[in-house]
Amino acid sequence: MNSSRPVTIKDIARRFRCSPSTVSRALNDHPAINEDTRKNIQEYAKEVGYQRNEVSLSLLNKKTASLGVVVPTISNYYETAVIEGLHTVLQPMGYTLNICVTNENYLLEKEYLSKLLSNRTEGIFLSVSQETYDSGYYEHLESVIQRKTPLIFIDREYEDFETSRATVDDYHGAFAAVEHLITIGYKQIAHLKGPNGLTVSEQRLKGYIDCLKKYNMSVQEELIINTNFKVESAIVPTKRLLEMTSPPDAIFGVNDQVAIGAMRVVKDKGLRIPQDVGLVGFDNSPISAYTFPSLTTVSRPGRKIGMEASRLFLNQVNASGDFLHESIVLPSELIIRESSLRTPQG
Amino acid sequence: MNSSRPVTIKDIARRFRCSPSTVSRALNDHPAINEDTRKNIQEYAKEVGYQRNEVSLSLLNKKTASLGVVVPTISNYYETAVIEGLHTVLQPMGYTLNICVTNENYLLEKEYLSKLLSNRTEGIFLSVSQETYDSGYYEHLESVIQRKTPLIFIDREYEDFETSRATVDDYHGAFAAVEHLITIGYKQIAHLKGPNGLTVSEQRLKGYIDCLKKYNMSVQEELIINTNFKVESAIVPTKRLLEMTSPPDAIFGVNDQVAIGAMRVVKDKGLRIPQDVGLVGFDNSPISAYTFPSLTTVSRPGRKIGMEASRLFLNQVNASGDFLHESIVLPSELIIRESSLRTPQG
Repeated sequence: MNSSRPVTIKDIARRFRCSPSTVSRALNDHPAINEDTRKNIQEYAKEVGYQRNEVSLSLLNKKTASLGVVVPTISNYYETAVIEGLHTVLQPMGYTLNICVTNENYLLEKEYLSKLLSNRTEGIFLSVSQETYDSGYYEHLESVIQRKTPLIFIDREYEDFETSRATVDDYHGAFAAVEHLITIGYKQIAHLKGPNGLTVSEQRLKGYIDCLKKYNMSVQEELIINTNFKVESAIVPTKRLLEMTSPPDAIFGVNDQVAIGAMRVVKDKGLRIPQDVGLVGFDNSPISAYTFPSLTTVSRPGRKIGMEASRLFLNQVNASGDFLHESIVLPSELIIRESSLRTPQG
Repeated sequence: MNSSRPVTIKDIARRFRCSPSTVSRALNDHPAINEDTRKNIQEYAKEVGYQRNEVSLSLLNKKTASLGVVVPTISNYYETAVIEGLHTVLQPMGYTLNICVTNENYLLEKEYLSKLLSNRTEGIFLSVSQETYDSGYYEHLESVIQRKTPLIFIDREYEDFETSRATVDDYHGAFAAVEHLITIGYKQIAHLKGPNGLTVSEQRLKGYIDCLKKYNMSVQEELIINTNFKVESAIVPTKRLLEMTSPPDAIFGVNDQVAIGAMRVVKDKGLRIPQDVGLVGFDNSPISAYTFPSLTTVSRPGRKIGMEASRLFLNQVNASGDFLHESIVLPSELIIRESSLRTPQG
């Protein structure tokens, strides 16, 4: 037993001159197996480092307790909150989660789904990668459905796809943020936008633009500048905004990181927040409540999304007969703090 | 084919009245299979949604391209940076990563390792859970070694364990942070500590205490207060520190989140940073460079740890014959910024 090949049930069966199923039963304490045989086989299996192939067993039992979570990134507060919500509901029920990160890459997403199915994963939670979304590929998703494996969309999703989903209303969150700035009296509102092409960037941009239009304010191209979600990507754009001949008096950041980067630049310029410049972020990340001044932001209920997605999965697993897929859209919520709370002006 | 059981090679073989191995060869474009048969089988397999069981195939090929990453959490900047480092090296080589979160729980860690082995994972990167570490359990790790599956420790580790590891020197990072505060003239240095029992908390506390001792400064129990790593957990402890009859003139936070929470409280009190109170964090999280003032901190090279761990894994996989395990300890690095940079005093 010195080869590097893992020991199999067959190896043990050969050693004991019995059938593999006898070995399998002995290892599983099956009552049909004689007590001594059971003990001998179990001791020998332990000695040679036999590791039960639970995947094969699962083919017999028709069930494993593994679930897949396929997401574009785990570097943001939002995604880890969703995963925490899944853990909270599903781990106590005996499920384990395989987390797979696609980096917005279609081929990687396809590969992960294929591997999860091969390992007889009992359900898959998916936030579609941007590349998949843009290209409209969906065959790899069809194959999940065809295999009757529950597929639950979290966050990014395909609208015309027959499956359950739990998502957040980003558009109205952005709309509410800008409406708040307008109501409180800010006249010239800039937007530090996310990367082009990402759904989340476009939804928030749309909320920003539609809100300006609703209030008959002009949409100025030069007040919309790209960032990459990271705090440092806000520095140069914010400097550019503040050096304009007619600079903005408020900035709506695509997320909290970007808004906090902008906050630093505004302070370095000697401008006061919120009196001279109002600031709003997005995410309600833990830090946003403790910056100085604290940051007005839009809360995305990530943990709740994870818990709702778990419920949708369990509904599907426990359904008898016909089953109707559910679509849940949770509202995002404006959290007003110091960074935008100046005295309302005409 | 309307049952919910996945279609197997056997089902297809029955349909074509041939052996399963013929089906397998046809699906893998084996030249021994007649062109028409191959085409018919492939079309039929696609039609009924057959999904190749790559785990079974991997038993034949002796290789899968899946790796396990078992970590206590993915909610911190450091852990996601390590995973990003692993991705950077290993994904272009065709490896996919299964990320498993133990929440510092031994039984969950054991379950994850067992499942990874069952799925014929080719290597496992592990940061031992605190519960495992404290209890001294290691049989589940032995079984990984016994199976000849490469096991690489990242971050938390067992010292007397025959395997490769890449870790960060936390102790000297904390020591350097406190030494910097002393050198610059701070006289009474408090520590906002991490949760009791966590290795990372204890290492940083030890660095803090040993440094104070080296400089003949007294270690005062009341200047050491617990937090839970989260920004909000720093608020009450910092208030308590600042309300002491002889309050500290510097605070060393166990991580950046805690230091940023303390920063907010110090400002709310109307005290100046760094003139009245100096602040140091730990992690060099992206936000720390953009707080106002920017935060002095200790950098843990998470991404580099992931890349080094990848290298250790590849060394082991590619080794012919005898192989010596490597232990790599990367230094942590003090990053001096505005929050501690007051004019040195006697």
